[in-house]
Amino acid sequence: MSKLKSSRVHTPIVLVNFKTYVEGTGKNALKLAKICEKVNLETDVCVGVVPQFVDIAPIAGAVSIPVFSQHIDPVSAGSFTGHVLPESVKEAGAVGTLINHSERRLKLADIDATITRTRKTDLISVICSNNTAVSTAAAALKPDMIAVEPPELIGTGIPVSKAKPEVVSGTVNLVRRVNRDVIILCGAGITQGEDVAAALRLGTEGVLVASGVVKAKDPYRVLIEFAEAVLKA
Amino acid sequence: MSKLKSSRVHTPIVLVNFKTYVEGTGKNALKLAKICEKVNLETDVCVGVVPQFVDIAPIAGAVSIPVFSQHIDPVSAGSFTGHVLPESVKEAGAVGTLINHSERRLKLADIDATITRTRKTDLISVICSNNTAVSTAAAALKPDMIAVEPPELIGTGIPVSKAKPEVVSGTVNLVRRVNRDVIILCGAGITQGEDVAAALRLGTEGVLVASGVVKAKDPYRVLIEFAEAVLKA
Amino acid sequence: MSKLKSSRVHTPIVLVNFKTYVEGTGKNALKLAKICEKVNLETDVCVGVVPQFVDIAPIAGAVSIPVFSQHIDPVSAGSFTGHVLPESVKEAGAVGTLINHSERRLKLADIDATITRTRKTDLISVICSNNTAVSTAAAALKPDMIAVEPPELIGTGIPVSKAKPEVVSGTVNLVRRVNRDVIILCGAGITQGEDVAAALRLGTEGVLVASGVVKAKDPYRVLIEFAEAVLKA
Amino acid sequence: MSKLKSSRVHTPIVLVNFKTYVEGTGKNALKLAKICEKVNLETDVCVGVVPQFVDIAPIAGAVSIPVFSQHIDPVSAGSFTGHVLPESVKEAGAVGTLINHSERRLKLADIDATITRTRKTDLISVICSNNTAVSTAAAALKPDMIAVEPPELIGTGIPVSKAKPEVVSGTVNLVRRVNRDVIILCGAGITQGEDVAAALRLGTEGVLVASGVVKAKDPYRVLIEFAEAVLKA
Repeated sequence: MSKLKSSRVHTPIVLVNFKTYVEGTGKNALKLAKICEKVNLETDVCVGVVPQFVDIAPIAGAVSIPVFSQHIDPVSAGSFTGHVLPESVKEAGAVGTLINHSERRLKLADIDATITRTRKTDLISVICSNNTAVSTAAAALKPDMIAVEPPELIGTGIPVSKAKPEVVSGTVNLVRRVNRDVIILCGAGITQGEDVAAALRLGTEGVLVASGVVKAKDPYRVLIEFAEAVLKA
Repeated sequence: MSKLKSSRVHTPIVLVNFKTYVEGTGKNALKLAKICEKVNLETDVCVGVVPQFVDIAPIAGAVSIPVFSQHIDPVSAGSFTGHVLPESVKEAGAVGTLINHSERRLKLADIDATITRTRKTDLISVICSNNTAVSTAAAALKPDMIAVEPPELIGTGIPVSKAKPEVVSGTVNLVRRVNRDVIILCGAGITQGEDVAAALRLGTEGVLVASGVVKAKDPYRVLIEFAEAVLKA
Repeated sequence: MSKLKSSRVHTPIVLVNFKTYVEGTGKNALKLAKICEKVNLETDVCVGVVPQFVDIAPIAGAVSIPVFSQHIDPVSAGSFTGHVLPESVKEAGAVGTLINHSERRLKLADIDATITRTRKTDLISVICSNNTAVSTAAAALKPDMIAVEPPELIGTGIPVSKAKPEVVSGTVNLVRRVNRDVIILCGAGITQGEDVAAALRLGTEGVLVASGVVKAKDPYRVLIEFAEAVLKA
Repeated sequence: MSKLKSSRVHTPIVLVNFKTYVEGTGKNALKLAKICEKVNLETDVCVGVVPQFVDIAPIAGAVSIPVFSQHIDPVSAGSFTGHVLPESVKEAGAVGTLINHSERRLKLADIDATITRTRKTDLISVICSNNTAVSTAAAALKPDMIAVEPPELIGTGIPVSKAKPEVVSGTVNLVRRVNRDVIILCGAGITQGEDVAAALRLGTEGVLVASGVVKAKDPYRVLIEFAEAVLKA
């Protein structure tokens, strides 16, 4: 997909969601993004960062790895105070965006409209989903990526790829019947290299992680472990 | 599908949404439901009514045709003040429910959770969708019925089956690839028998109508025209 | 207030919110409403019931005590599928409605618009609030009643009138500076007669209760205890 | 108020909301902010800018005038993907935030919680309201500023200070009874110096403008006219 190439995105990918963690805000966010870049430069494994809206511009201006937004609104330029315009995150340097994260769920029609907006603004769309059925529905909307994350495992340290392998493999199977091109990621509870390895074995092309990296004592060490798991896979 | 039989639902179906129209509220709603029942008794065409929550019990107790709710919430019995419990509309006499009407759009995960609740409460699920892509996504969630209604045509008197036949036939084609069992309806702007005939020719198994019947000078005459179009199809 | 008189509402009032509890749904709801009526007939203490939307008509047709809706939408007759029209709950027999319950919170502008609709439809408005500041803001919108309920105590059995008396008395004091006419209730955790007595001593004119009555082994006994506490106050 | 001083905010103030207008996005936003700064430097009238989230950091780093966010969420650091953390906009250089703009309305309890968060993060809170009653309710929550904007006039070029002077003066009167300290602004339809003069005569301490400046052919000329009206008042 040429959109991915021009965005320096390639798979397998490790996507790091900074949420609104202290460790992922402002100066801390910039520091963390540079650690992610270091791991990318040392291993050539694709590491993407997903900072808060206000941190997109400073981070995108400082690192060579792909930067994603945590959300965009399906609006066009106009009277939409307090909304996140796709064109704005693009101009600030983002190459893509999460859509429908479990902490920012959207109406079905708005997910569809948001994907349409990402196509017009050349942003990579990553729809988050909570189970197999929702992943399959999301796949029918033809996003670039789907990230399945059982909400009950988010932030627990219990990896979806080990605790609920059937959700991951079931998602891969059913999504493939509806959409052969979409890139499938999984997330929730991933903290170790072997969780990443398990995710790839189950048929995904990467992971979406947050606290496992952002709140780790040594994010560099964790990411290097992830990257090594990717390289061995 | 045995759920349909026990609910006196059969296709082709004409589903009449009373919205919050004056003509579809309280005593007026009961009167209109009896007109719908009369048309069903005279023609044997399935006519279902979709009154407001407070009118479900009085109507379900007074007519022999199937009654649907306009919405339910994906909640269980418990602390959910102001929500619409699936078990409550069932006990009040409803046999099914609209989900995600364009005037009451839901989050994707809630649509999925609501369909799961309809299965447990033996209610017929009718997901409304606004275009082909959303219909296909909805079909992946395995509801009993899908009703595609381009919002820009709702209430206009410009029938979707004539103004946007490609939305209807495109929906039928794409939905069928994902789900062979779901019953497909279309709606928006339907006011004449020939609109219903066009809808059936395009591959749907019925229509979802509102103002075309509820706000008609003579709802009986309109419904008889619809029923005759169904019988000729 | 003549609206209250014509609605058989007088203070002190015990308002029983049925939520979506099994014990407060359908036939159970009707049975519970008759118990509430019995306590009213025996003690002359005002007991109001707040059933789900679908149960308003059957209950209002069967009991002599005031029936409230759990929520209404600030819409007028028209194209509002899945909404709760004020005129509908009125015609079904409700005399008033909760607004902004902690389980069904509303936007500020919608609370204002809903109160405006209750005035036009002659429904008693009961705004729920979560703390002193919000109660004072609500009072500025001139509803008929305010019910302050700290959400962290709802359903706990720890009575707000004892655990957080300063929230209740502070609310009474500050609300009175903004609005001298509004009737102030309190709720959350009320299960015993002494909780009701404490609420009245703190300056309120009644209580909003739910699980303490609805999920009690013997709702009649609990309500009689409440009524006796009211009569002694 | 020392918070205002340290933020270089003084009254009368002209607050320019960039919304998601093309003219107020990215490089255009930076250019427009510099024009606002120029007017401030030439006239000493306080001009504040309200850009999109992603543009806060670049603008706050480039101009000496106060920068506001268009919205913040009432969340703390943690698991809130896609939310706007108050600490983040503060660290990015914002001195305050709009809350409850008519294009981003909030639940009452969330407005209260957001104001509480602005106090902890030392951000100036500007609650937007749509009429007199809502303004009075908002004033009870003790924000720093209130901006009353009848939504039906937003973007029309029909100035609230002339078309609905009673909304402005009524708001000033009623708000003052509840809160003597809050700074009152008005907005909607303001495009000329005389609209600003009328607003100040009616008792406000400034204006909230958007299209009248952002989409003007010559924003500098419009702002100079506004500033002159302020200086003459």
